[in-house]
Amino acid sequence: MLLFEIVTIGNELLSGDVLDTNASLVGTWVTRLGHRVHRRQTVPDDIPAITDALTLAVNRSHWIVVSGGLGPTDDDMTAEAAAKLVDEPLVCDQRSLKRIMDRFAQRGLPFPENNVKQAMFPRSATIIDNPIGTAPAFEMRIRNRRLFFLPGVHREFRTILEQHLVGALTSEERGTCLFETMRLFGSTESSIGQMLQNICLNSGELIQYRVKFPEVLVTPVVQNGDSARLEVLVNDIATRVGALFYSTGESTMPEVTGQLLRAKKWTIAVAESCTGGMLGELLTSVPGSSDYVTAGVIAYSNKAKQDLLGVSNATLAAHGAVSEPTVTEMLRGLRRTSPADVSVAISGVAGPGGGTDEKPVGTVFIGVQIADNPPTILHKQFPGNREWVRILAAWTAMDQVRKILSDTKPENV
Amino acid sequence: MLLFEIVTIGNELLSGDVLDTNASLVGTWVTRLGHRVHRRQTVPDDIPAITDALTLAVNRSHWIVVSGGLGPTDDDMTAEAAAKLVDEPLVCDQRSLKRIMDRFAQRGLPFPENNVKQAMFPRSATIIDNPIGTAPAFEMRIRNRRLFFLPGVHREFRTILEQHLVGALTSEERGTCLFETMRLFGSTESSIGQMLQNICLNSGELIQYRVKFPEVLVTPVVQNGDSARLEVLVNDIATRVGALFYSTGESTMPEVTGQLLRAKKWTIAVAESCTGGMLGELLTSVPGSSDYVTAGVIAYSNKAKQDLLGVSNATLAAHGAVSEPTVTEMLRGLRRTSPADVSVAISGVAGPGGGTDEKPVGTVFIGVQIADNPPTILHKQFPGNREWVRILAAWTAMDQVRKILSDTKPENV
Repeated sequence: MLLFEIVTIGNELLSGDVLDTNASLVGTWVTRLGHRVHRRQTVPDDIPAITDALTLAVNRSHWIVVSGGLGPTDDDMTAEAAAKLVDEPLVCDQRSLKRIMDRFAQRGLPFPENNVKQAMFPRSATIIDNPIGTAPAFEMRIRNRRLFFLPGVHREFRTILEQHLVGALTSEERGTCLFETMRLFGSTESSIGQMLQNICLNSGELIQYRVKFPEVLVTPVVQNGDSARLEVLVNDIATRVGALFYSTGESTMPEVTGQLLRAKKWTIAVAESCTGGMLGELLTSVPGSSDYVTAGVIAYSNKAKQDLLGVSNATLAAHGAVSEPTVTEMLRGLRRTSPADVSVAISGVAGPGGGTDEKPVGTVFIGVQIADNPPTILHKQFPGNREWVRILAAWTAMDQVRKILSDTKPENV
Repeated sequence: MLLFEIVTIGNELLSGDVLDTNASLVGTWVTRLGHRVHRRQTVPDDIPAITDALTLAVNRSHWIVVSGGLGPTDDDMTAEAAAKLVDEPLVCDQRSLKRIMDRFAQRGLPFPENNVKQAMFPRSATIIDNPIGTAPAFEMRIRNRRLFFLPGVHREFRTILEQHLVGALTSEERGTCLFETMRLFGSTESSIGQMLQNICLNSGELIQYRVKFPEVLVTPVVQNGDSARLEVLVNDIATRVGALFYSTGESTMPEVTGQLLRAKKWTIAVAESCTGGMLGELLTSVPGSSDYVTAGVIAYSNKAKQDLLGVSNATLAAHGAVSEPTVTEMLRGLRRTSPADVSVAISGVAGPGGGTDEKPVGTVFIGVQIADNPPTILHKQFPGNREWVRILAAWTAMDQVRKILSDTKPENV
């Protein structure tokens, strides 16, 4: 196992203006590959501070990933500090210089003299191509330690990390790390952690958790390339979490719902009260969603529920806007004005006001109807503040559509 | 000026599972108060690693803020490491123990023996109250350096930082720091930076920037308590950025728009195509927005534009769904089905598909109409991907309503 250290450079990280997302990305990759990040340092744009940090890192870590301070301005001094560390001059790399000058020429811009700096490297450095920007990247070796200097801009940092640095590990160091990210919706990280706590893990196997509210991402990792073991873990997790598990990889809930609709060539229309348009916004966040999303009605006031959806005064008076009868009538009205294969209606108390003993904040009714089959109405009690209740309501509606369309047993049916 | 160092403790920070938001919060506060965070270290839950980091910090920094490792489980070892650093035993603080036991008793839960640990402190430590959790906090002094140990849970960390740590500065150290956060919408951080670059700042004055897409937050800070100077800076910035400046403090665009509607006792209704419900979602994100948001129509397909809003086939055929005539007819239809004091309609090409030479991706028409006055139609060309275009479209619509209602000169009028 290799010990990694991350050194991030920049006054803006220390002053709190910018979150250190590069460091967290390195951590995720290194852990997944079976190695360990055991230290992180952040230092200002200052040569002695940078050389001190690098000296410390070289004394205790095998691989050192350095981020930032490689731009063209005066406060970018990482390359100079790296040269000082090994007592070398900075030399100009003609190929890098040409690439940078070409970039300016292509855009018809004059070449600012300052930018020559971005082609200057410590003499013994090995230059790493930056496929998406002008900031340089390079590697140095000091006493068998490998130091990687990457630009701080997150998109460039990420690209070089994933394309170059992971590849710089020997096949032995890299092992054959296999993993699969499983997306779960409908429970909390701690509950899911309990469901999975006594899964048997062999050495070199782990489960990573990441909360991306309202989802929890669970990633089983197998470091010895045993794909059969990965499958065992995925299946074991899937069995334990049941219907919480809704997709893998980068497929989000709006995409999964959309794929199911597209596969059946079905359309969807929505009627929203407490979510105020969020369900429509989520469904249409997917490129090409115009193939299946037809229309929506935001019936926020009672008057809009009556005027736009024909909910009756009597129903609103007898049961209130947040009730199964109102949601049933919202579905009926929606089917009349915007007929679609799938109709969804949501009404709830998002808070902070409006709660009662009978219907506290977080009470939400969600109706889903396929064609003119009898609708399914969920009665939910969501935790959290207004934002949470609305997000959980819109996601639960999509999840219910997903369950019905994929023949997963939907809730309450 | 005091030099601050931040030491964050936890395997989960190094493995990338959790973003280090505590460190960034300290940076914002310390910078604002006129001091400087000059180093940050992150170490694993490991006693030698923690004591090494603290030793280094004590040798080079005046104040050290330590976060994490104060929970009840075996991998929480910050208090033990702190005791080792000064060669003291851990002693049980009876008052803290009682508070923790009371918390469990109040909830009718048995007291887990493990939690005694959270009442154990290095002998010379001064205990700091944690008003919102059971994790302890304490201060130690080593050779005139002040070390603050705070729980890692962000909400608890933030509360103790803001209530206790800022107050622990002497009035001289704290100075009288005044600041005002100005919220700007409608331009980029770099353009705004250029508008403000030659503002004259005296010593002890600074301007902090933070991007919170699609907004840019600009915070002028005056460290000597000169409120007249702060006013001068706020006015200078306001003059330079003009109508980009829409509010101060925590008032977001949906809130500002809502306040203006509420003040006039006006209602608002929306008709959305490319934003798919996002404008409705944003307007209704504000508690109490049912006082002014009445209804919305998500007319995503052309058929929905015809059926729900009465947009004519001829107009769609002649000008397309993304056009001034279509948006004008969307407003007319919205006023018919959902009459409100303010009507808003949006239609655009969010991409990635659907762009043409004449109407490339990012083309958006935004119509705002007050009662039955002639509508204002903006024709915008937004940069970025689908998500950006949709967010910019929904925000620009709110901003246009804000400008019209506040008698700021609206765009294109």
